[in-house]
Amino acid sequence: MTPAAPWTPVPVPAAADPRSVPSHWYNLVPSLPGAVPPPREPEGAEQDDWGSRIALQQRIRLDAVRAQDAATEPFLEIPERVREELASIGRPTPLLRARALERYLDTPARIYLKREDVLPTGSFKLNSAIAQAHYAAEQGVGTLVTETGAGQWGHAVAWAARRFGLKAVIYWAGVSARQKPGRNALIEMLGAEVHPSPSEQTPVGKALLRDGRHLLGSLGTAIGEAISHAALHPETRYISGSNLAHVLIHQTVIGQETKAQLAALGEQPDALIACVGGGSNLGGFMGPFLAEKAERGDGLLLLGAESASAPRLTRGTLRYDHADPEGVTPLSKSYTLGRDYELPETHVGGLRQHSGSPLIGVLRGEGLLDATAYEEADAFETGRLVLSTEGMLIAPESCHALRAAVERAVLARETGRSEVIVACVSGNGLLDLDGYLAHR
Amino acid sequence: MTPAAPWTPVPVPAAADPRSVPSHWYNLVPSLPGAVPPPREPEGAEQDDWGSRIALQQRIRLDAVRAQDAATEPFLEIPERVREELASIGRPTPLLRARALERYLDTPARIYLKREDVLPTGSFKLNSAIAQAHYAAEQGVGTLVTETGAGQWGHAVAWAARRFGLKAVIYWAGVSARQKPGRNALIEMLGAEVHPSPSEQTPVGKALLRDGRHLLGSLGTAIGEAISHAALHPETRYISGSNLAHVLIHQTVIGQETKAQLAALGEQPDALIACVGGGSNLGGFMGPFLAEKAERGDGLLLLGAESASAPRLTRGTLRYDHADPEGVTPLSKSYTLGRDYELPETHVGGLRQHSGSPLIGVLRGEGLLDATAYEEADAFETGRLVLSTEGMLIAPESCHALRAAVERAVLARETGRSEVIVACVSGNGLLDLDGYLAHR
Repeated sequence: MTPAAPWTPVPVPAAADPRSVPSHWYNLVPSLPGAVPPPREPEGAEQDDWGSRIALQQRIRLDAVRAQDAATEPFLEIPERVREELASIGRPTPLLRARALERYLDTPARIYLKREDVLPTGSFKLNSAIAQAHYAAEQGVGTLVTETGAGQWGHAVAWAARRFGLKAVIYWAGVSARQKPGRNALIEMLGAEVHPSPSEQTPVGKALLRDGRHLLGSLGTAIGEAISHAALHPETRYISGSNLAHVLIHQTVIGQETKAQLAALGEQPDALIACVGGGSNLGGFMGPFLAEKAERGDGLLLLGAESASAPRLTRGTLRYDHADPEGVTPLSKSYTLGRDYELPETHVGGLRQHSGSPLIGVLRGEGLLDATAYEEADAFETGRLVLSTEGMLIAPESCHALRAAVERAVLARETGRSEVIVACVSGNGLLDLDGYLAHR
Repeated sequence: MTPAAPWTPVPVPAAADPRSVPSHWYNLVPSLPGAVPPPREPEGAEQDDWGSRIALQQRIRLDAVRAQDAATEPFLEIPERVREELASIGRPTPLLRARALERYLDTPARIYLKREDVLPTGSFKLNSAIAQAHYAAEQGVGTLVTETGAGQWGHAVAWAARRFGLKAVIYWAGVSARQKPGRNALIEMLGAEVHPSPSEQTPVGKALLRDGRHLLGSLGTAIGEAISHAALHPETRYISGSNLAHVLIHQTVIGQETKAQLAALGEQPDALIACVGGGSNLGGFMGPFLAEKAERGDGLLLLGAESASAPRLTRGTLRYDHADPEGVTPLSKSYTLGRDYELPETHVGGLRQHSGSPLIGVLRGEGLLDATAYEEADAFETGRLVLSTEGMLIAPESCHALRAAVERAVLARETGRSEVIVACVSGNGLLDLDGYLAHR
């Protein structure tokens, strides 16, 4: 009645183990091929309602992230509590060999997928949201204000705020908020306050509505509203989910894990591919490989996949611009389509912005980062291929990276070259099903 | 420019490792306190259209699972290919200490959650779907026919069928299929054929529609339709996702992992809790603990949480009954509400059936299994509590198990007793958001 189990399990950590999570973040800045151009004031800033944009940023940001933006040391220690939380959400995330996809493509390439989609809110955004919520709690800040494009960052902030006992106020690109009632409901169930942008909540939103500009909303309109909200509510702090150095730094847990996982497999990557909106997924994934890129040159391809409806890296210009249409952000130097660019409606809210990260601007400007752009219908087609081979539904943004990976793998078939392609799956698509259905 | 990384990662398997997955399934049958009553023919079976129900089952079932239903050895070897697939989907699944929930409840109890919700289709059902698809492919069967209640089993079968190159035909309890357009779309994107039940596709469905009975549909109506479909299409085979011995056996990877994980933590469980519909989640989770239960008696509580709208274990009777309203299944002995019982509309499709597993019947009948029932509004309330503490949205079915766990933990607070409560999270709730919203 009590037979001995024939199975002697390989030791598996029963609970999350912080020692499996990197102890430090990787600071991309000292590894970049050039200095990151500093932010600038727009002309006449001192005379208008918002005053010095740089001073405003200093006032509304958390102390710790301001320090990280200015850091020059190559590694920054991850606070123990953050490391514990990162372990508890399932880090390190798996690195999946996509064998079914390889078989379908009949390619000699080996395709690896870094699975950020398995995190509790369904995307990589939680990595930075947890860090920033931790710093807010440590600083005694009770309310965080932020913006979100696709809703992934907003969801992550709502989750992290709840975890650390904070309140979250979220401005969400209106078109995307309306596309995703499910994610909206989840964010509200987590206790966050959500405002589709442009909204009547802030002077920035009111101005856009009054002038009939950017009525669909975008990450940019939401940034402007979140900043103006924080400016008018001194007890709050404003946080970002992309663009800035500290966010890319927080995301380097992805690349460090990937590097260690590839090394354990004895694999050397030939191509690293990520989708690119503000640049935090790409930067966090590729940052820890920058030293290797400097050594290997063309032997290691770094490839960003963007949306053809917001083609900054492929069709924009590298110059100073505001990150929001109203101009309440400082000017920063990045690839931009211009802040007046009216972005069309798409289901790819995470890649839907007119500018991006200055760090990505340096990478691209110095020729280290290749870029390609896809129409959303093509991206969703790749998403369906990934579903029918590997079995998981990935976010529309991630579909762009996967499409580039599939193209490389098909090229490898044609040239007979066995190469190692590593793509980052930034998020899952369960709350983006309507987008998939719209492109069936 | 190339600093050495200060992080020496703990070795983490980069890819799935089949050695981390149990090598054998646990066979519950020899550990049960009594024999499982065999199926019986209904009176007059030989004279009606369907003939011998037992012979029909023999004809439409896969050879391997028929053998497993009759197996008496305590362990059954898991085929290597199945073990590899189980590793590739993320087994072993985590055992999470729910510290945030404990803190909220201010309880001395330690609550552990076995996280089947993290599997690719969002529920534990994949464990058996993979095994059965493997056996079908091995037997040269091209098409699998099955039923599903909440859609979790149907989704898992669609996924596994795609993985093994098979076609899947799925009869889905109509009320649930209509509640979940997202899951429906996913199943269809995986290439499966879906019919809300009762349907015009089968004589069983036509009879129900004609007579105006069970028009909402249920797991039972879908079982009847799937069986009649298989009976009329000899090239297909019919598979089940619950009730029968082989399904519970396939699910014992859950309990074996849990046992090993608890042992690694040095914990001895005081209570094991699972939701109970057909019984495969409960059986697979608790089966490997049956020998321990036999030794510890009341020292180890086994608790099934069912839906108050389908209260078989708490208000039904243990007797022979059909599993489907039309009576195309053999009679089997389990707790039942009677096959004419019109189940009300709920969002808890996975627990919505009039009868269940004969194995669970033995456990309950012999007094080893306690049971409790919850209204769905109360279950969803617990789901919101789990979301706001632990951060994940769990399936409505799993909410029943968690509600029971919360009640035990509150009791532990009142009595001051530090006990170890282990609950199984059978699935995630991302595709059940409408249910949550209906009970906001």
